[in-house]
Amino acid sequence: MTSVPLYEQERIDDLLTHELHIIQSDEVFSFSMDAVLLARFASIPRQGGRILDLCTGNGVVPLLLSTRTTSHIEGIEIQERLADMAKRSVQMNGLEDQIQIRLGDLRELVKETGHGVYDAITVNPPYMPLTGGDLKLNSHQAIARHEVHCTLEEVIQSSMKLIRNGGKVSMVHKPQRLGEILSLLRKYRLEPKVVRFVHPRKHMEANIVLIEALRDGKPDLRILPPLIVYGDDGQYCPEIMDIYYGAKEGNL
Amino acid sequence: MTSVPLYEQERIDDLLTHELHIIQSDEVFSFSMDAVLLARFASIPRQGGRILDLCTGNGVVPLLLSTRTTSHIEGIEIQERLADMAKRSVQMNGLEDQIQIRLGDLRELVKETGHGVYDAITVNPPYMPLTGGDLKLNSHQAIARHEVHCTLEEVIQSSMKLIRNGGKVSMVHKPQRLGEILSLLRKYRLEPKVVRFVHPRKHMEANIVLIEALRDGKPDLRILPPLIVYGDDGQYCPEIMDIYYGAKEGNL
Repeated sequence: MTSVPLYEQERIDDLLTHELHIIQSDEVFSFSMDAVLLARFASIPRQGGRILDLCTGNGVVPLLLSTRTTSHIEGIEIQERLADMAKRSVQMNGLEDQIQIRLGDLRELVKETGHGVYDAITVNPPYMPLTGGDLKLNSHQAIARHEVHCTLEEVIQSSMKLIRNGGKVSMVHKPQRLGEILSLLRKYRLEPKVVRFVHPRKHMEANIVLIEALRDGKPDLRILPPLIVYGDDGQYCPEIMDIYYGAKEGNL
Repeated sequence: MTSVPLYEQERIDDLLTHELHIIQSDEVFSFSMDAVLLARFASIPRQGGRILDLCTGNGVVPLLLSTRTTSHIEGIEIQERLADMAKRSVQMNGLEDQIQIRLGDLRELVKETGHGVYDAITVNPPYMPLTGGDLKLNSHQAIARHEVHCTLEEVIQSSMKLIRNGGKVSMVHKPQRLGEILSLLRKYRLEPKVVRFVHPRKHMEANIVLIEALRDGKPDLRILPPLIVYGDDGQYCPEIMDIYYGAKEGNL
């Protein structure tokens, strides 16, 4: 592990069995199960491809993806503080050759890269629309959770521009917004192909949804078996244990 | 049970514990689990309302709905042979005062009824688009299964015209087409609010989806707990037994 500077209130967490480490901060940004699920769900090229993670935060998705591929991975983050955390985490793990963290606005990225240059895109976007309430929208966490800097439609439109024909865009989001998500994906020629719902317990409603869309695909959607996080015994189910600690490939 | 004429190859089946009977025919039309699930899933007024079942086939959904409400129920069917079966089943059960079977084209119904006259609409439409293959599309079953007489978009557009503001449209369909369904519902101001997936077994993909949409509703979708048809013992799970034989109310 390469030594990197840590700022106040930051800590280094293990990314479980992968012998990876990540800089986190409860005040600024720390990853959730959603990001871990996305990093296992997404279909990505095992080698030779170019992968992009939008709204990369502290870089948790690129770091986890690096355990599944030798392809080049880029992450883009609009908040300087988070992009800096992500860059230091990449450096700490000695992954600078594979992972590039970009500080910038995802809506502008296509001007730098050109259209259709990525084989796979992942995104764990802000879940909540701006409602005009009295949110503290200047905090790092609020920006990561609310559509302050970009809307769901802008994320999807940008993905459409950046993904190659036949490339796959994978997203994790809240089921509450699934109607909007599927409509917008289809509006921008990203056909939803695989969806998996995550339920905390088997008799509870879904609280996470994973979606994979294919650029210019034909309509034919598969709803995977439900992922039930906790068993009747209140413990993580075997599949969650495997996702966190195992090494499965794509679509969980 | 009132006596009605039966044609060749028709039989009378029980609608389980409801003491209802229905005319079926393997050659012409017999109902599936999908219709039973829809009739339990749909939110309908318990009394004083006006309910419409599109693509009513042999009238299975109106018959089952009649166990849950005293509201007036109409069913519309474009195939004369099926509408006739449905009418005889209604008569056989002595439900002529509550259930009216219309022979006609759902796309034309609004001209008769006017806009926004129904409080709730249910529909178990043909699942398969016309593909130009060598289907025997003149058979009764083929017409019930394929979009011969109306497309998914026409079903949804007609529902939008017929449902009142704040009324609910409930549909059962195949998950493969969920992307199209949610996009089209939203296109016609029917906001998806509740979705439930049905999986044959817990480790299998969904093969049925139930959707409830609210006319002019705001986006906020709930994904109910998965309905797993068969338990690990290969028997119907308790909830399916309850749906077939019990008397629960709405959204299963």
